[in-house]
Amino acid sequence: MPRNAPINFAQKLATFSEHWSPRVVAELNENQFKVVKFLGEFVWHTHHETDEAFIVLSGEMEIAFRDGSVTLSAGEMYVVPRGEEHITRAPTECHALVIEPRGVVNTGDSEGPLTSQADVWV
Amino acid sequence: MPRNAPINFAQKLATFSEHWSPRVVAELNENQFKVVKFLGEFVWHTHHETDEAFIVLSGEMEIAFRDGSVTLSAGEMYVVPRGEEHITRAPTECHALVIEPRGVVNTGDSEGPLTSQADVWV
Repeated sequence: MPRNAPINFAQKLATFSEHWSPRVVAELNENQFKVVKFLGEFVWHTHHETDEAFIVLSGEMEIAFRDGSVTLSAGEMYVVPRGEEHITRAPTECHALVIEPRGVVNTGDSEGPLTSQADVWV
Repeated sequence: MPRNAPINFAQKLATFSEHWSPRVVAELNENQFKVVKFLGEFVWHTHHETDEAFIVLSGEMEIAFRDGSVTLSAGEMYVVPRGEEHITRAPTECHALVIEPRGVVNTGDSEGPLTSQADVWV
């Protein structure tokens, strides 16, 4: 990447249309920043080895736990602690950043049809 | 923190006015998310042990290196690789997120009047 190139989230998001399919845009040490489009409901899952951060760029999303939920709008973030079962939902399309260690799979311990390949860059 | 509380960057930024004084708002494993207000010019410095990520929330900032620079606007990010000497500048006030490991000092290897205490939460 040339030295003078900022990473523009809107430009990166414009390169794909798939939902629940995180794309890596940057790395910080062993962590990755991924842009993702949410629409509808994901699957209940747990990341046993790591926390997972969400920053909403546009729209609104819910992160639900077995005992409560948090709703995030643009300009807000939340960190799901490691080991906490959760599900994400977005009634209308929501664009977000997900930050977590390199190689983390989106569905954690619940592999299935919504499982997305890790380490796909845009 | 209650389960249902998103971290709102604007609310966190409204709690202080100091420039170049990062405040921690969240942790992801051993990493911290900090909100910061930039205005004017910082100091040349290097973080020898870690990369450092910047996400601009409002305004515009420049990250300059000895051989070039990058300008970031809202919705853009950049990761300064570990070991790269750099300086940040903002001709008008810029609000940003800085993401880096817990305990990193803002001025890296160039301690001085702009050095800010690490691990201060808002």
